[in-house]
Amino acid sequence: MRVAVDAMGGDQAPEVVIQGAVRAVDTYQVQVILVGDSSVIEEQLSPMDDIEGIRVYHADEAVAMDDPPLKAVRHKKRSSIKVAFELIKKKEADAVVSAGNSGAILAAGILTVGRIKGVARPAIAGVFPAEKSPVILIDVGANVDCKPSHLLEFALMAEAYASACLGLQYPKVGLLSIGEEGGKGNELVRAARPLFEKNGLNFVGNVEGRHIFKGDVEIIVCDGFVGNVALKLSEGMADAVRNMLNRELDASAQGREFKQMASEALDRFHRALDYEAFGGAPLLGLNCVSVVCHGDASPRAISNAIGLAAKYVDAKLVEKIALKMKGHDVNGSPSLMNEKGSS
Amino acid sequence: MRVAVDAMGGDQAPEVVIQGAVRAVDTYQVQVILVGDSSVIEEQLSPMDDIEGIRVYHADEAVAMDDPPLKAVRHKKRSSIKVAFELIKKKEADAVVSAGNSGAILAAGILTVGRIKGVARPAIAGVFPAEKSPVILIDVGANVDCKPSHLLEFALMAEAYASACLGLQYPKVGLLSIGEEGGKGNELVRAARPLFEKNGLNFVGNVEGRHIFKGDVEIIVCDGFVGNVALKLSEGMADAVRNMLNRELDASAQGREFKQMASEALDRFHRALDYEAFGGAPLLGLNCVSVVCHGDASPRAISNAIGLAAKYVDAKLVEKIALKMKGHDVNGSPSLMNEKGSS
Repeated sequence: MRVAVDAMGGDQAPEVVIQGAVRAVDTYQVQVILVGDSSVIEEQLSPMDDIEGIRVYHADEAVAMDDPPLKAVRHKKRSSIKVAFELIKKKEADAVVSAGNSGAILAAGILTVGRIKGVARPAIAGVFPAEKSPVILIDVGANVDCKPSHLLEFALMAEAYASACLGLQYPKVGLLSIGEEGGKGNELVRAARPLFEKNGLNFVGNVEGRHIFKGDVEIIVCDGFVGNVALKLSEGMADAVRNMLNRELDASAQGREFKQMASEALDRFHRALDYEAFGGAPLLGLNCVSVVCHGDASPRAISNAIGLAAKYVDAKLVEKIALKMKGHDVNGSPSLMNEKGSS
Repeated sequence: MRVAVDAMGGDQAPEVVIQGAVRAVDTYQVQVILVGDSSVIEEQLSPMDDIEGIRVYHADEAVAMDDPPLKAVRHKKRSSIKVAFELIKKKEADAVVSAGNSGAILAAGILTVGRIKGVARPAIAGVFPAEKSPVILIDVGANVDCKPSHLLEFALMAEAYASACLGLQYPKVGLLSIGEEGGKGNELVRAARPLFEKNGLNFVGNVEGRHIFKGDVEIIVCDGFVGNVALKLSEGMADAVRNMLNRELDASAQGREFKQMASEALDRFHRALDYEAFGGAPLLGLNCVSVVCHGDASPRAISNAIGLAAKYVDAKLVEKIALKMKGHDVNGSPSLMNEKGSS
């Protein structure tokens, strides 16, 4: 298993990315290919102990976090993210991981390895730790201003992902809206709903924001603007809640005593709110496994994302999405192919 | 101070609404006018002790939670929510509170008391308890599919509300988007940004979902679809977090001991996550104070909402929004009036 990692992507690249790669090699059965400025990477690698399983692959350029994605990818032909995807094409890598500019990851992926047949818009699937079951929110940021058919694509890709990678069979699918009644929602949701009703999904109708933390609906579909706001909001709230609880406990002698006494329960509580633990979010719809991390991902998050990427390759995620899309003509009428055969 | 309360609006109306009204009369210096089916209301009121300060005003009909709002308000001419707004027009009440169908509250308000001059779209302002300062998120559900000029209206109304009712002077205003760079966002946000830059707002640019829990930007503007998703998500997450913490504490002897020992710290923590404490959200832009509650609001939430409505009347909220809007021609070019004079 060879994972190409964009060493130059992220707020603290390449330092943090390199640390994450070293950690991943220790933790998972993977070979990591660090793609980026080889002189910088090698200088930072040398003092470390374990660099078995790490290979460095040179790329002259890097896309900055605030570069306009498409333009940057077109002009910087030797950017680290583009070269990472080229390693897939050359069959020298099996998956790509990046904490860089997510628009640039998407653009580089489309231009280099291309999209799975039937996918107009690759999308990022966020996984939320809900009470009953993990919940997939898709799209959490790859696409703004979507069409109804794009939302249907997201649902189908998420279904394949849920079953291949999260062990969720025939997951319930909801459309994120502002009221559960069919007539409620914005133009996009109202137009998407009939498509969802006739495409063999286990569609439960509209759901509200609160369902993201319940787990009674396993796949929640929305455009990437709404999904990204939801993702960032829940991360911000998780941070705020942890800070608040710590402040309250530190303010009293009993609280401080408790922090030592019941540290296990508190640790479990904090872990459940720790969005870094999952590592990264899969970008679904490209012709290779790719996992997107936060720009400010820690070494642990980068390492976990590399582990996820390897797991998704093993689970044949790309092949399973391709199979799912084959059964549907998303941009036209629903396919007449047997739904059971494709799900 | 006379607050007209829609007794028939809400999932458990009129029982819960009546209990809330009785509580409000006990708590605040207000007279409550319960509007709805007088025989039902009077039957439920009689066994209670304190009905001083409560008046019942009969209305034949009620709008159901799942009625199409505009149609219901037009056809049910004697609905409780419409009659409540008519009491404002007749100068028999000073404010309206309802836990009913929010689309119907909006429609009844527009048809009965009308909008403040310069407001095309009244909007609901949600107040979040952030770390540094309360944060106003506007709109949290009155309008989907907004135009850029609507977002500007929301910002101006929220500015007047922040200063009149929350004591926030010259609050910082952000546009909710998916990245802080100016070029990021969907079509709506990109088109709204130039309007925000030239209308005398203390505009800090784009903000992300995580800012809602920070408080470094006091007003965050978005369309009502995005805002409602954000509101419901944060409520769902608050519930999930409280359940999770309780589960962790109950699972160990130390945890159970702590719950008694540091119950004050835990109470403060829970209160901070308790969105019911605020009671309701003001619907800004109508020609009267109106406060919207959750459909499943508790008596305590209804009572708090009545208290808020009275406070907003005292603060001359409607007059202050009218003054703010006077300085701006939102739907055309920015007014040439002196910005300082209006803010």
